[in-house]
Amino acid sequence: MPGTIVVEFFDSKVLRGNPLGDPHIRRIPVYLPPSYGRGDKRYPVIYLLAGFTGSGEMMQNRLPWTETFAERCDRLIAAKKMAEAIVVMPDCFTRYGGSQYLNSSATGRYEDHTAKELVAYIDREYRTIAGPRTRAVMGKSSGGYGAMILGMRHPETFGVVCCTSGDMYFLYCYLVDFPKAQDTYKKHGGCAGFIRHWGQRPKKGEMSLFPALNTLAMASCYSPNPKSKLGFDLPIDESTGELREDVWRRWLEWDPVHVIGRYARNLKKLSLLFLDCGTRDEFNLHHGMRIFSRKAKALGIRHVVEEFDDNHSSIQYRYDRSLELASRAFRKSRRAR
Amino acid sequence: MPGTIVVEFFDSKVLRGNPLGDPHIRRIPVYLPPSYGRGDKRYPVIYLLAGFTGSGEMMQNRLPWTETFAERCDRLIAAKKMAEAIVVMPDCFTRYGGSQYLNSSATGRYEDHTAKELVAYIDREYRTIAGPRTRAVMGKSSGGYGAMILGMRHPETFGVVCCTSGDMYFLYCYLVDFPKAQDTYKKHGGCAGFIRHWGQRPKKGEMSLFPALNTLAMASCYSPNPKSKLGFDLPIDESTGELREDVWRRWLEWDPVHVIGRYARNLKKLSLLFLDCGTRDEFNLHHGMRIFSRKAKALGIRHVVEEFDDNHSSIQYRYDRSLELASRAFRKSRRAR
Amino acid sequence: MPGTIVVEFFDSKVLRGNPLGDPHIRRIPVYLPPSYGRGDKRYPVIYLLAGFTGSGEMMQNRLPWTETFAERCDRLIAAKKMAEAIVVMPDCFTRYGGSQYLNSSATGRYEDHTAKELVAYIDREYRTIAGPRTRAVMGKSSGGYGAMILGMRHPETFGVVCCTSGDMYFLYCYLVDFPKAQDTYKKHGGCAGFIRHWGQRPKKGEMSLFPALNTLAMASCYSPNPKSKLGFDLPIDESTGELREDVWRRWLEWDPVHVIGRYARNLKKLSLLFLDCGTRDEFNLHHGMRIFSRKAKALGIRHVVEEFDDNHSSIQYRYDRSLELASRAFRKSRRAR
Amino acid sequence: MPGTIVVEFFDSKVLRGNPLGDPHIRRIPVYLPPSYGRGDKRYPVIYLLAGFTGSGEMMQNRLPWTETFAERCDRLIAAKKMAEAIVVMPDCFTRYGGSQYLNSSATGRYEDHTAKELVAYIDREYRTIAGPRTRAVMGKSSGGYGAMILGMRHPETFGVVCCTSGDMYFLYCYLVDFPKAQDTYKKHGGCAGFIRHWGQRPKKGEMSLFPALNTLAMASCYSPNPKSKLGFDLPIDESTGELREDVWRRWLEWDPVHVIGRYARNLKKLSLLFLDCGTRDEFNLHHGMRIFSRKAKALGIRHVVEEFDDNHSSIQYRYDRSLELASRAFRKSRRAR
Repeated sequence: MPGTIVVEFFDSKVLRGNPLGDPHIRRIPVYLPPSYGRGDKRYPVIYLLAGFTGSGEMMQNRLPWTETFAERCDRLIAAKKMAEAIVVMPDCFTRYGGSQYLNSSATGRYEDHTAKELVAYIDREYRTIAGPRTRAVMGKSSGGYGAMILGMRHPETFGVVCCTSGDMYFLYCYLVDFPKAQDTYKKHGGCAGFIRHWGQRPKKGEMSLFPALNTLAMASCYSPNPKSKLGFDLPIDESTGELREDVWRRWLEWDPVHVIGRYARNLKKLSLLFLDCGTRDEFNLHHGMRIFSRKAKALGIRHVVEEFDDNHSSIQYRYDRSLELASRAFRKSRRAR
Repeated sequence: MPGTIVVEFFDSKVLRGNPLGDPHIRRIPVYLPPSYGRGDKRYPVIYLLAGFTGSGEMMQNRLPWTETFAERCDRLIAAKKMAEAIVVMPDCFTRYGGSQYLNSSATGRYEDHTAKELVAYIDREYRTIAGPRTRAVMGKSSGGYGAMILGMRHPETFGVVCCTSGDMYFLYCYLVDFPKAQDTYKKHGGCAGFIRHWGQRPKKGEMSLFPALNTLAMASCYSPNPKSKLGFDLPIDESTGELREDVWRRWLEWDPVHVIGRYARNLKKLSLLFLDCGTRDEFNLHHGMRIFSRKAKALGIRHVVEEFDDNHSSIQYRYDRSLELASRAFRKSRRAR
Repeated sequence: MPGTIVVEFFDSKVLRGNPLGDPHIRRIPVYLPPSYGRGDKRYPVIYLLAGFTGSGEMMQNRLPWTETFAERCDRLIAAKKMAEAIVVMPDCFTRYGGSQYLNSSATGRYEDHTAKELVAYIDREYRTIAGPRTRAVMGKSSGGYGAMILGMRHPETFGVVCCTSGDMYFLYCYLVDFPKAQDTYKKHGGCAGFIRHWGQRPKKGEMSLFPALNTLAMASCYSPNPKSKLGFDLPIDESTGELREDVWRRWLEWDPVHVIGRYARNLKKLSLLFLDCGTRDEFNLHHGMRIFSRKAKALGIRHVVEEFDDNHSSIQYRYDRSLELASRAFRKSRRAR
Repeated sequence: MPGTIVVEFFDSKVLRGNPLGDPHIRRIPVYLPPSYGRGDKRYPVIYLLAGFTGSGEMMQNRLPWTETFAERCDRLIAAKKMAEAIVVMPDCFTRYGGSQYLNSSATGRYEDHTAKELVAYIDREYRTIAGPRTRAVMGKSSGGYGAMILGMRHPETFGVVCCTSGDMYFLYCYLVDFPKAQDTYKKHGGCAGFIRHWGQRPKKGEMSLFPALNTLAMASCYSPNPKSKLGFDLPIDESTGELREDVWRRWLEWDPVHVIGRYARNLKKLSLLFLDCGTRDEFNLHHGMRIFSRKAKALGIRHVVEEFDDNHSSIQYRYDRSLELASRAFRKSRRAR
């Protein structure tokens, strides 16, 4: 018996009137495990966060030779590797590609939307076992970042955190893009010109534009500025490309590796903190993970780390591991009660 | 008013018992235009063929910053650029990535499935205007190839053909992959070893494996051999990589550029033959298109050719042009009657 | 005691008035072994042929962390791995990058220059042991090709042949470049326009132009045509890129793999035929070597084949192996006398 | 009448006993202008510094389609674009690839060698017009860096400075390599293991190893540490890759963009400060140049900046411009006297 996907057309009060004019009605797929319809059992909940340029809905895309996310859960549940759980797949996409699941005056209050509004709704509408020990947040890439940052900031909400190839150590994962971003902005007469150009391109997938897009998107999340023309401060001088140290410091305030000390108490409350990353990650996120892990150890934060022999792309198969470990954490906590 | 997507779970008699053990029940999305539900009008039909590793279902995937295929049709119909039409999106995927919409003893009878079984079913179950002048076939990449080859071979079925970046001039689009394919096969102890390895890989999207995969997939379509171990003949010697001239000649029998003369009478029956291709196509398909066009001219085959400044990837926006030209062809033919 | 390099300023009668206006006075470095100056001993001779875009003089270039060619010989001779031998490094560069050591009405009589004029001069002016068993020809890339083709055609002159990563199986090493070459020619209004552009560029090393350059250079060697505007026939139609089968057949007449049968008797006369190639050769020359070897075996041609784990670039270190094997061949033949 | 190249076998007292065991006898080519031999005129002197992995001797390498450095000078002098001048091409290569023309306890006193020992020797042995206004230093890449840093620190010696694509803004030109360097070190059990491996490789030119090599080479120049095992401190933690902020700060002390303020008085003494860089520089040096220029303007430092449409490789043709501008500066200063 397979589970089912319900798509919520969620009308977010929090996102209404967001500054980028992005939709406040979001399609949010919810996976209900096989037994959900046959009784009144309650279930742990997993919030699965999409990466940059992704959304919960895109996670349902059919890819060749690959099971869908629901099929993945069905298989893992049948094999007793995954607990029967509800999986919620939020949509925090913005017109720049993603919100990093943060509140920002430049994009909208995606942190509030995810960690508060949506959690409350799901707990109200579905038969969940509410509480941090049975509520996980996970994802890969920017979704892994979202899991980490939400876990750091809301341990009372999310007690189980799995971060796969998550953005961290911004010096290596973002800064390397800055000179290339500036080259692209310059070609379009500045970042504003690039945004206009981007909006009109029939084709968005050009890898050569990624640094320019990613840099401004992250700036919209990490260094919003309501008084600026774009709504955010770029971390670089638009005409020379020079790093703006003051803006960069504001970015670092959102770097897990940089702020781990400040959130150590919160992180210690988690029943699971799991990180994994490929050792050939093109965004150098394996370095970030190792640095995070070393700092976590020094701070006495329990966590599990795994490296795998792969790069950053097409690593959905790693969800198996997160789902398995989260399920064990759910079980342990139930026994503990 | 938007159109709707109906997903047919089509139980194909033709594909039942296919040699690769691929499913005979296929999910086939059918787009019904906005007015379909409000009356008993009949509509032209477009068969939109997916490229290699794709399927009709995957064409419904949500991509960032990009309308879905249904949204695209809705917009074009609202703007009067596209005729209200039914769009059928077949699934001719195989475990090797695709069937090229051909009959093959190695994969199954996908040509019969598409051009006969499915067309008959659609004309029976939907309010179509049957007949070649109101039945189009189109697609890009291997879908463009499929459109071309089905148009060449079944002009009485498909009278309107649009081929975007379609496989042709095999010498440039396939042969260049052969030495790389052989390197990969060798690494796995031969093609059979590679197929086994491929089946077990958690991750299939590695570009470095594409030549190996594409070469065997095309061999399964162009040079099937029921007596061989794999079910098909590779066009190369597995141990040295040398071209097998006899197998290669069998491939060329399926190269539009090679067999255009033989099908000239058929191609002249088409009410539209449209080809377009990017001038930076990584598979050199713009060369193929130019050679095809020159030969078509020499043979007196009417056709429309367009080049655009792009490469082979993420060119769905070109459907706009195919849908527009096909719609004009439908209209003309109605006036002609 | 190190050997010495003498640079011959060789005034070639054969190259005088060559059609490209390339110099007929060539700088030809000659390595004399350590003992040369101390007696009247005679020595075997090695003709070391440079690759495409190279020359004997460029082989003397100092590269970081790398011994010069003379230092290489000194070391090998001191270690008794190489016989004391004279090494002659011809200059068969043309304004298109190289002559493939062939006679061509488009470039000049480089085969006559190398195999006849230069050999006669060296035997006259230096204390050589004349005769095929003590006269080797070797090189890598186009120099490997030159060694092979001169060995095939002049076994009475060169009895010892070492071919490292030599051009062969033109289908894989040249044809793959043709569509890219056509793209470049088209951008410059045809091949003639590209040649003009090339002549004026301050910078010649752009890899993206290599297919265009290599294709016309090889055409100047393999398909000269005194009646044509360029002096040679391109193997492709300049406007579509289509292969010109008739020209291509003329190229194949110079492909070692294609003509090995015709030269089998000659190849059997060689006292050493050595081929080696990297298994990751970007020009697919390892495939060519394997095909050559299989055909040679079938024809009963004795030869030695070695594969090494590398690609096509910076493989000068492989000279050690050729010099060693050639030296053994010299020794054996002396004992045989 | 062409100029001549004299190669000095220079026995450096300064480099004797250098810590890496690199040679203290260096081959230093000196170009003497055409009229040098015919009279007793005195000439301005240009010190032309090689880039990373290069040396003065390698600058004499013959490359296809390209004039040698001496031929370049001959042509420019004949065309009256360049003054008759002596050009000295030092060799500051180390076993790690280069010294950045600095004194370092890890490599040797290359700054003293170049700016003092060699200058004194040249002025003694050749008919130079001694003095900063007729003594230029120039180069590209690390040679451009050398020109800049020597000009900053020795304006009384070098009054004319031309810096082509010179290393600056280390954040963009070096730091981006650090994670990749760490990956490589890790593969070899640390940096020391990599150095051993590097020493034994028959082939050094692998681009994939460049970040590892460059990072340690720069560390040997910028952050020497006689107490450390390697003789220098890496700017990264070898096991995680994390930036070592303290070491990084020592690097920045050598970044022209970082220390320009400190050297402003010196820079104002120069009779020419010329910078040029390609706008597609792979090492982001055009960003560095723009930042430098903006700071120089703010500090009131006269300078000339040129951008050109190219990347970092094969840009020797830009010497023409440096030689022309330096020559004008020589002339002006003579008139001024």
